[in-house]
Amino acid sequence: MKDDTITLDHGSGGKVAHQFISDAVLPLFDDPALRCLDDGAVLETRGGRIAFSTDTYVVDPVFFPGGNIGDLAVNGTVNDLAMCGAVPLYLSAAMIIEEGFLRRDFDRILAAMQKAARTACVRIVTGDTKVVPKGALDKIFINTAGIGVIPDGIHVSGGNARIEDRVLVSGTLADHGITILTLREGLRFESSLQSDTVPLNHMVAEMLENFGRDIHVLRDPTRGGVGTTLNEIAESSGVAIRIHEDRLPVKAAVAGACELLGLDPLYIANEGKFVAIVAPEIAFQVLDMMHAHPLGGDSRIIGEVVAADLAPVVMITRIGGTRIVDMPMGAPLPRIC
Amino acid sequence: MKDDTITLDHGSGGKVAHQFISDAVLPLFDDPALRCLDDGAVLETRGGRIAFSTDTYVVDPVFFPGGNIGDLAVNGTVNDLAMCGAVPLYLSAAMIIEEGFLRRDFDRILAAMQKAARTACVRIVTGDTKVVPKGALDKIFINTAGIGVIPDGIHVSGGNARIEDRVLVSGTLADHGITILTLREGLRFESSLQSDTVPLNHMVAEMLENFGRDIHVLRDPTRGGVGTTLNEIAESSGVAIRIHEDRLPVKAAVAGACELLGLDPLYIANEGKFVAIVAPEIAFQVLDMMHAHPLGGDSRIIGEVVAADLAPVVMITRIGGTRIVDMPMGAPLPRIC
Repeated sequence: MKDDTITLDHGSGGKVAHQFISDAVLPLFDDPALRCLDDGAVLETRGGRIAFSTDTYVVDPVFFPGGNIGDLAVNGTVNDLAMCGAVPLYLSAAMIIEEGFLRRDFDRILAAMQKAARTACVRIVTGDTKVVPKGALDKIFINTAGIGVIPDGIHVSGGNARIEDRVLVSGTLADHGITILTLREGLRFESSLQSDTVPLNHMVAEMLENFGRDIHVLRDPTRGGVGTTLNEIAESSGVAIRIHEDRLPVKAAVAGACELLGLDPLYIANEGKFVAIVAPEIAFQVLDMMHAHPLGGDSRIIGEVVAADLAPVVMITRIGGTRIVDMPMGAPLPRIC
Repeated sequence: MKDDTITLDHGSGGKVAHQFISDAVLPLFDDPALRCLDDGAVLETRGGRIAFSTDTYVVDPVFFPGGNIGDLAVNGTVNDLAMCGAVPLYLSAAMIIEEGFLRRDFDRILAAMQKAARTACVRIVTGDTKVVPKGALDKIFINTAGIGVIPDGIHVSGGNARIEDRVLVSGTLADHGITILTLREGLRFESSLQSDTVPLNHMVAEMLENFGRDIHVLRDPTRGGVGTTLNEIAESSGVAIRIHEDRLPVKAAVAGACELLGLDPLYIANEGKFVAIVAPEIAFQVLDMMHAHPLGGDSRIIGEVVAADLAPVVMITRIGGTRIVDMPMGAPLPRIC
């Protein structure tokens, strides 16, 4: 056993694996449910509606400005639960590691997961570690699944957008995707580029407590970006969505990188932003609340829901023209999250 | 887009990915929660205790006698929930696929997942698909997480073994591990070798309904086999476990393969068997019930819990000697499940 790398034995279920879990994992995620080391976690629940979500994170590179695959994996599932209107409570963490991965890198990833879980106020209660032979996997992938409780009276769904609703985004677009892409391609436009990975559950909880059923849709525009997300919502709700180019918040460095690379920030992944579709009469109050939140300073009302238009999603351009915002065929950017 | 292989676009979140989910996945797993295609599934619960578990399946080869990675992934998490004393209800399925994987192989895997979910009476309610560039992953890995409900009055845990309890196994040892190993190494001892992957939840539910709190420990001896599992239980419960070599059920073909390869069936993975540690007064009744179940015909009482012995787990050999059954350091067999 080499202490500085992860070996097949770390994922074997034998002595080395037990020692590894006891030394590296349990001290960071000290939780009564996890400590039992039974085949699953036993948790008390109150009944009612729960949200259940899963995502695997395969981002390359594993470390990037603003975070690493560990906090990305925790925040991602926390956010998916929040987008269901749920208060995220419990997460599973399943690590899939290539033999030879550096132990110190693994520890950095775990530390980021611990910190992210604490920030989001979720418990990591069950997990799994698989180590595969060198070449069977590129470095490390992480799956997280999560459970959250949906408060009574909350009903958000991609199918709930109504005509005249307003469309808000909680901040600047494309930060995560452009950061990963420029890093991977060895491009160095701007040292200011940074992933936006954060847990959105606290801001969402505040919105739902105050505005309840008037919040109709919540969705985090990760893979596919805001453009794809709006198309999904328009389709699920049987409506059209009109957005305004001059209201889209994009950082100058991100806009510059997009222009140079010929990419549209509307289709680039975000990891710390959400789209909210809300009743028109509360839109400005919601915006004020989002502005007051530390993670929502750049929030904007970017558009409105209409009965029908040229296409499910259209954009009024800066010069007053109309552009169809289609769903892309595929993704130009694999392993972005 | 090539219809016969999985491409990066299938995991992109764009049009191709949406079409793929609509065509390949939704018809097989038709479920109201899944059909919403929101960021997670919304589910009704009654309150009380739930079990939550996760595992990633990285088995190589993906197809093997007795099953494939798909039913293995469903049965594995169903069984982990059952081992917590829970009735498994909901599963997530997160597919991680190498670009170029054959579409027909993917469809076979999905079909096996569908069939396994139906057999186990669980709903696959949420999922994720990631496709990574060729070389970043060997073929396909699947993560499943699951939620089950623990009936009132049931308390099984690795820490609950008591002195004088009896130790049962629900069938023959090492079938899964030896099947994968011989297949992978191109060895052909016996055409009869077959993985034992099955869902154990129905048999476990019957035991728990009839014997309730007298069932103290349930554990499925997957990675590390029965030898490792018994060591974990002995440690968690602060007891010793004595087993009897002449009572261990091992198929002749498996025993032969183990002998030839110098492997001990006690340390080889099972995917359709469990260890139960039960109060002594009900042991024979439990055994009768297991024998009457279609999946428990080869069940045996293999040993008993004692206060202390030479080691946490000892075996009385066929010739009447005593052998220490230690926890192995690592695993001789990566990617077995």
